[in-house]
Amino acid sequence: MSLDLDSIHAAHERIWPYIHRTPVLTSSRLDEASPAAAGLFFKCENFQKIGAFKARGATNAVFSLDDVTARRGVATHSSGNHGAAVARAATLRGIPAHIVMPSNSAKVKIRAVESYGAQIVFCDPTEQSRETTCEEVIKKTGAALIHSFENEHVMAGQGTAAVELLEQVSDLDLVICPVGGGGLLSGTAVAAKSMRPKIKVIAVEPANADDAAQSFRAGRRLVTEKKFTIADGLRTNVGEPNFAIIQHYVDDIVTVSEEAIVSAMRTIWETMKIIIESSAAVPYAAILGRAVDIKGQRVGIILTGGNVDLDALPWSCSRDR
Amino acid sequence: MSLDLDSIHAAHERIWPYIHRTPVLTSSRLDEASPAAAGLFFKCENFQKIGAFKARGATNAVFSLDDVTARRGVATHSSGNHGAAVARAATLRGIPAHIVMPSNSAKVKIRAVESYGAQIVFCDPTEQSRETTCEEVIKKTGAALIHSFENEHVMAGQGTAAVELLEQVSDLDLVICPVGGGGLLSGTAVAAKSMRPKIKVIAVEPANADDAAQSFRAGRRLVTEKKFTIADGLRTNVGEPNFAIIQHYVDDIVTVSEEAIVSAMRTIWETMKIIIESSAAVPYAAILGRAVDIKGQRVGIILTGGNVDLDALPWSCSRDR
Repeated sequence: MSLDLDSIHAAHERIWPYIHRTPVLTSSRLDEASPAAAGLFFKCENFQKIGAFKARGATNAVFSLDDVTARRGVATHSSGNHGAAVARAATLRGIPAHIVMPSNSAKVKIRAVESYGAQIVFCDPTEQSRETTCEEVIKKTGAALIHSFENEHVMAGQGTAAVELLEQVSDLDLVICPVGGGGLLSGTAVAAKSMRPKIKVIAVEPANADDAAQSFRAGRRLVTEKKFTIADGLRTNVGEPNFAIIQHYVDDIVTVSEEAIVSAMRTIWETMKIIIESSAAVPYAAILGRAVDIKGQRVGIILTGGNVDLDALPWSCSRDR
Repeated sequence: MSLDLDSIHAAHERIWPYIHRTPVLTSSRLDEASPAAAGLFFKCENFQKIGAFKARGATNAVFSLDDVTARRGVATHSSGNHGAAVARAATLRGIPAHIVMPSNSAKVKIRAVESYGAQIVFCDPTEQSRETTCEEVIKKTGAALIHSFENEHVMAGQGTAAVELLEQVSDLDLVICPVGGGGLLSGTAVAAKSMRPKIKVIAVEPANADDAAQSFRAGRRLVTEKKFTIADGLRTNVGEPNFAIIQHYVDDIVTVSEEAIVSAMRTIWETMKIIIESSAAVPYAAILGRAVDIKGQRVGIILTGGNVDLDALPWSCSRDR
């Protein structure tokens, strides 16, 4: 396959019985706070199955496997939502799942993966350890790797959120979504630009993990040093196939500070009364920080997930920090 | 007026341009956690204007005043949501509002009242001080008292949430709502029993502030000693006119522990990804604690509000506690 609107529609057809068509919410308070925009429309993937858009891509990838391959099971490495999504999809298909998780993963995400009946294999919290541990699991079990973003079925699945968003809200001018590995961004960009060629797609990244923004400016994929970011879902380096698509389809990648992310997260909690995780707050942080030009625009914002460790909120006095 | 389905429908007609018809959410996870029930249906008044159902009653009361009375303004005493609701309704009608608030009110609630442009008068955190301060304000300004529950227009307004809930969900067998002063409960009971005579209405109260439950058993209104409860919206003694209606229409009043309230609140946050305040968690606490028989029932639950001080969550290590 190659990633195009047809493959995203095929993904939607494949996964719709297993996912939610999530609502799009608006907030008069947040519209008043951004009077320059013609309206903000929040696609609530925090209400998605497993609490994040990752259910879309993982389900598409798992259900795209042929029966013989599927029977040997699936494996992935993930600090959280993708792991839960693969675990759930495997259970739905009735096949085993092996999820490699860093030993310092958020408890709420470990519990979620466990609750879907997957086999968890803990590794050290480094990219290297995740990959080698996952390779060992695959060698031992024969499971198929479902990479969290370097996988076209995953990208196509993630693109289905944008398909719904554009169906649910007419005349969108701009879609803003976060970028980590680039699975969501590549699917979103292909879907949005194919359905509505004049739409703009802008990605947002924590300044502390700005490899995608740096790569976008350089015109080639850079692997950069990362600082800590509260947006734990976005620490990953952008993937190779993802970056190729992003270069072609995305209009800009901007960055936001840690303070802006926390402030955006808290504002959405307090104003909209919904729970979003820190990574999901990154697009609204770009609006608060005026990193994106929203003047006169109808702006679609993908709220990517809502899995939060309530014992370690960024504004609390938790002993973990 | 007297409180009946006609007055509740009249309230709805009066207030609908100013309030949200809030959504009813379901959760497959919470349904699985309560397999005895035939389904749980959550009426999300946390998404209501000012973040709580109180917008309904206050708006109805303020817009029911004749022009001459209204011009002199309105006054009330409230530790929070009702104050914000009166402030907002007064601004919508273009009249002054004086809100008497205990000096220890949650910051988020003080900010909300301020944001609607009302005059705040602080008092000591006792029922006595609230009432005398409010009387002084009324004497000085000529403002009309909008009591938070001992007011039939307020009760009729609160009853509109149940009207919507019964319109939105067919064949409900049971409605569960919290009881503090009894404004919501009296409106809910009259609306639900009038629309669907076979429906059951059960109220839930914190065991630490169980005057309504004690009164219900005694068959007469008792004023009881209260212990601290995290459900700060429910500390009030049930009102006299409210209790008369409750005795007539409500099937039972049950109580829940502080631990059950916090656990229910956290479960709803983590599972439904929505923010509800502690008082709003009380009905689900009764389900978790098996204080209500839900076997085979389609259960409507009014989630009363979502105004939470995010710096003082019940499970955090906040220095305020």
